Amino acid sequence: MINKLTDTSKLCVHTITTKPWEIEQSIDEFSAAGVGGITVWRNTLEGRDITATGDRIRSNGLDVVSLCRGGFFPADTAAQRQEAIDDNKRAIDEAAALGAPLIVLVCGANPNIPLAASRDQIQAGIEAVLPYAEQHNIRLAIEPLHPMYADTRSGVNTMTQANDMAEAIGHSLVGVAVDVFHLWWDPRLEQEIQRCGDNGHLFAFHICDWKFPLDDMLNDRGLMGEGCIDVPLIRSWVEKAGFNGYNEVEIFSNRHWAKDQKVFLQEIINAYKNKS
Amino acid sequence: MINKLTDTSKLCVHTITTKPWEIEQSIDEFSAAGVGGITVWRNTLEGRDITATGDRIRSNGLDVVSLCRGGFFPADTAAQRQEAIDDNKRAIDEAAALGAPLIVLVCGANPNIPLAASRDQIQAGIEAVLPYAEQHNIRLAIEPLHPMYADTRSGVNTMTQANDMAEAIGHSLVGVAVDVFHLWWDPRLEQEIQRCGDNGHLFAFHICDWKFPLDDMLNDRGLMGEGCIDVPLIRSWVEKAGFNGYNEVEIFSNRHWAKDQKVFLQEIINAYKNKS
Repeated sequence: MINKLTDTSKLCVHTITTKPWEIEQSIDEFSAAGVGGITVWRNTLEGRDITATGDRIRSNGLDVVSLCRGGFFPADTAAQRQEAIDDNKRAIDEAAALGAPLIVLVCGANPNIPLAASRDQIQAGIEAVLPYAEQHNIRLAIEPLHPMYADTRSGVNTMTQANDMAEAIGHSLVGVAVDVFHLWWDPRLEQEIQRCGDNGHLFAFHICDWKFPLDDMLNDRGLMGEGCIDVPLIRSWVEKAGFNGYNEVEIFSNRHWAKDQKVFLQEIINAYKNKS
Repeated sequence: MINKLTDTSKLCVHTITTKPWEIEQSIDEFSAAGVGGITVWRNTLEGRDITATGDRIRSNGLDVVSLCRGGFFPADTAAQRQEAIDDNKRAIDEAAALGAPLIVLVCGANPNIPLAASRDQIQAGIEAVLPYAEQHNIRLAIEPLHPMYADTRSGVNTMTQANDMAEAIGHSLVGVAVDVFHLWWDPRLEQEIQRCGDNGHLFAFHICDWKFPLDDMLNDRGLMGEGCIDVPLIRSWVEKAGFNGYNEVEIFSNRHWAKDQKVFLQEIINAYKNKS
């Protein structure tokens, strides 16, 4: 059964979605529009007092849903892999200061080494930062990325892999972020979402659409309803698997970024209510 | 164990790889260069006597490896699906006239309908043309395409799916074409190639490379060695699974097509011997 989204209380918007705005404006506009939550991209925090930014978000009535992003663990040398681990620890510090309970991991891939080795390095990287995450009580969500990003962005490309890895790590702070853009094509998606929920690993749900043709492999995501993903159906699977968190709108789009972002935010809200 | 490719007797080149050439020039140049086989794209046969073209290929010492391509079964209406079936029958006629034992199927996808429905329509389409393929003794190879083409090109996106479909159809004329570009990222690839061979379904093997970044989702394939695919490793899996047919170089590349195609053909042969 597909429950209609009647209000925006469970709508979260990523700061990258309205990239032209500084985070302060995103906070004000999201709050005024009735958005329930915000996922903060780390670049928007540069030069800010992070604790104060978190307070500002909360005092505007928004939940901090997650911090984007950690990850990018695979690298050529042990020193570079340590740098990645250190950067993930800094992300944990930032999440703690901001009051974000969760960091989304874009796990990384290194085209210079076998993909299987990148995958091993990802798991090792997550395990290396886990004690630090524990210390700050920050959850880590493995986000499987579309296979078209397996060259340089992520060696985790299906829900099956993400579930396998979360189960292999076996820690209450490590789970999975489901993003419809990356996963919609997978014939195993419904059953793997159920498996993820059954194991308590379903940490986040990201929505947008797959436009066709895709004019840019990275920055041409569609607003819900602009493409061929059945977002309400996938949302129903996520809800059936026990998820009751935010529906996070994460759209990278040169086309939408070129617009007046106030207009775009209204379009997001309309698409959220009618096409999600 | 990876066996080195010491000669070009098992090298097949697709006519699309040297797209600027008419098929007659491709035949002459491939033959002069010691290429063993040719896979013919249907567009190159327009306006030709197909039987005579097949004879010309063979009299130049080349094998006709396959005809590209059939498929594109999913459509909005029953009438359009029948058109697709009729076109696949014409492809079978062309293959029979040319003396091609195999047709490669780019199965199709229809963004207007659920992907699961497209997948059902693909299987129904193959089953509908199968009696005609039987009559002409033409084999049909389901080619799983990269998930980035699941919107409009193919609803079959992994070896698992292709194997499942070939087994569900269960006919000696229906198998699978393995293309490294589409499948290299899949953590299940080795085992699914083995399953494919064990079931007698491994009909064709296509090689190229995945460049990064990919400047064009369709026409920026790399020559073997230009990207991050371990072609020799995947070839070793295919051989271990019992395949002893041609290694088919299928490259769509605006970059390579812009070159003198004689130079490109020599680069293909070098890459074949040293990076495949």
